[in-house]
Amino acid sequence: MTDEYRMKADDLESFMTDVFEGIGVPGDEAVVCADILITADKLGIDSHGINRCKPIYYDRIKAGILNVQTEFEVVRDCKACAVVDGHNGMGHVIAKRCMEMTIEKAREHGLGMVVARNSTHYGIAGYYPLMAVDAGMIGITGTNARPSIAPTFGVENMLGTNPMTFGMPTDEDFPFLLDCATSVTQRGRIEYYDREGKDTPAGLVIDREGNSMTDSGEILEALVKGAAALVPIGGAGEETGGYKGYGYAVVVEMLSSALQSGNFMKALTGMVDGAKAPIELGHFFIAIDVEAFLGLDEFKKNTGDILRALRASTKVPGAERIYTAGEKEHLAFLERKEKGILLPHGVRNDMEAMRDELNLNKWSFPWEA
Amino acid sequence: MTDEYRMKADDLESFMTDVFEGIGVPGDEAVVCADILITADKLGIDSHGINRCKPIYYDRIKAGILNVQTEFEVVRDCKACAVVDGHNGMGHVIAKRCMEMTIEKAREHGLGMVVARNSTHYGIAGYYPLMAVDAGMIGITGTNARPSIAPTFGVENMLGTNPMTFGMPTDEDFPFLLDCATSVTQRGRIEYYDREGKDTPAGLVIDREGNSMTDSGEILEALVKGAAALVPIGGAGEETGGYKGYGYAVVVEMLSSALQSGNFMKALTGMVDGAKAPIELGHFFIAIDVEAFLGLDEFKKNTGDILRALRASTKVPGAERIYTAGEKEHLAFLERKEKGILLPHGVRNDMEAMRDELNLNKWSFPWEA
Repeated sequence: MTDEYRMKADDLESFMTDVFEGIGVPGDEAVVCADILITADKLGIDSHGINRCKPIYYDRIKAGILNVQTEFEVVRDCKACAVVDGHNGMGHVIAKRCMEMTIEKAREHGLGMVVARNSTHYGIAGYYPLMAVDAGMIGITGTNARPSIAPTFGVENMLGTNPMTFGMPTDEDFPFLLDCATSVTQRGRIEYYDREGKDTPAGLVIDREGNSMTDSGEILEALVKGAAALVPIGGAGEETGGYKGYGYAVVVEMLSSALQSGNFMKALTGMVDGAKAPIELGHFFIAIDVEAFLGLDEFKKNTGDILRALRASTKVPGAERIYTAGEKEHLAFLERKEKGILLPHGVRNDMEAMRDELNLNKWSFPWEA
Repeated sequence: MTDEYRMKADDLESFMTDVFEGIGVPGDEAVVCADILITADKLGIDSHGINRCKPIYYDRIKAGILNVQTEFEVVRDCKACAVVDGHNGMGHVIAKRCMEMTIEKAREHGLGMVVARNSTHYGIAGYYPLMAVDAGMIGITGTNARPSIAPTFGVENMLGTNPMTFGMPTDEDFPFLLDCATSVTQRGRIEYYDREGKDTPAGLVIDREGNSMTDSGEILEALVKGAAALVPIGGAGEETGGYKGYGYAVVVEMLSSALQSGNFMKALTGMVDGAKAPIELGHFFIAIDVEAFLGLDEFKKNTGDILRALRASTKVPGAERIYTAGEKEHLAFLERKEKGILLPHGVRNDMEAMRDELNLNKWSFPWEA
């Protein structure tokens, strides 16, 4: 029996829309949630797509810690800047509206910045810079998250994986998109090692004594219990620059929370007195209107020239090629457009469970044939 | 004979002012150059202070590739944004005026961003965010630089050490200041290993075959010849997240050059047809006016709370303490305020040479007593 079931992205998106609508998200907002999840699947960011639909959204809605009706409140609107309160609504909906506001502000002032409080998981960070790119702008975003990174010389999970994400228009078929956590790795990658029966490389995760952990199954359990922490980009200690990744994680924590007096670090565990509670994340969004500086086509040629020069530079002997940020996502996009989205066993189970619970009887899946 | 000669920061700053003025920099601009260099010395960033005065500024002025008269031309001024041409003048002077403009724009719009082209080495990046912090703002800056970092899977020196630098006001005695290169290490650190007779740790520098180099003297020679390259934060290859540091270095290259159509990467070697030529760097400056989002005191408490929680978290057994970004610089500042700035042998020689050439006869140094 093959495990190789795929669905066309459009169908999968349509199914997720039905799920979100079925559980109570208003129709146009269900479309937004599904669009952001499927964008992750299309771009090959498998950790943030359909696989998250049930555990991070559906289950949390059912647990009563995520509101299907999103109350988007602008609590401060001042020139190029604004503060939004998401009242624990759907993170995708909050974040997309925030980036729309940010782009409008950048159109008016050249720059825009919006921060959100009491938001929830907003999906792939890269979606929002891509909105700015579509508007001819540079987009930047970041979010805090449940604490998992230890500071340099520390062992305690203090900072979220806190992505600092940039998108820039180029004259190529795809934009520059750097969407990465400020930890060396993240839970999704360790789950991958575990599924493959592989150890996690040393230096990525530490235990409470500061020693590297490599048993992938053991790491996954320990992370949940706070008995392990992720290492910031640059590694543990100072010698290989770990204080830099740690520093960037703090920058993201501050930009996400300090401008809106929201929760941060240990207050984001999603547990209060042993019970599940809203996670109340903070995000920030920045847009830079390229046309305020120079012509958009000129900018695109400039960024494209940088990327082409990097790819054409001398490779490590034996290396196939040099990539630039966003290129692998584009290659995944081309492949999946053709072949559809691969659905592992666990994801298929999730899909069946949601369909059955919501009586979405129009859906029968290819593996059920 | 002791090598432990120190000078009070004020005296050293005054000497540098005389040097810059002596070689032709207008008086008030000589003050700016000296102020930015001595700030590095005061904060313990020894790679960017008095030690740079002769090789990076004085010698380049004498070589005719750095103009003592700074022509600061605003080539575009559009809402919260501006583009400046520095015409190969003094980088410190250009950059300080750029950040002043950025702060003014942020005061008006909530945000400001200025990019500079045809600038030159602007000293410690951290100086400019600190200007924003003094104005109650978040400050961000970056600059491109002579190519030295290899992209992931590459061996060629393509990207500058491209710092991405953030400063934030806090309610503590010192601000949050993250001023670091996007490479694991940089030339100044390898020079330090070399002076101490130590090997450079593996994984920081690679040769043209992609192998780690550890002989510090050999690395310094190879870097000059382009036969070695620095590794981005996260290390070589992908497994430990090197593509993230590489990606951030590209972001800085783009923000520094693509918005002003200036030189980038290999065009920044400072050599044209075998002769020394202006380096024509690009920089970017961003300021975020905290008061556009919330009260400054509230923001300062928020950032301070984050920093205090990080420092109070569980340490690696045996570790003395957990630092936050800007703390080591503050500790250096306190120590040097008391003891003065340590002047190694090579720096003392430089100081004597500049004094003698410029006939700054009022200066006699403590080691000449």
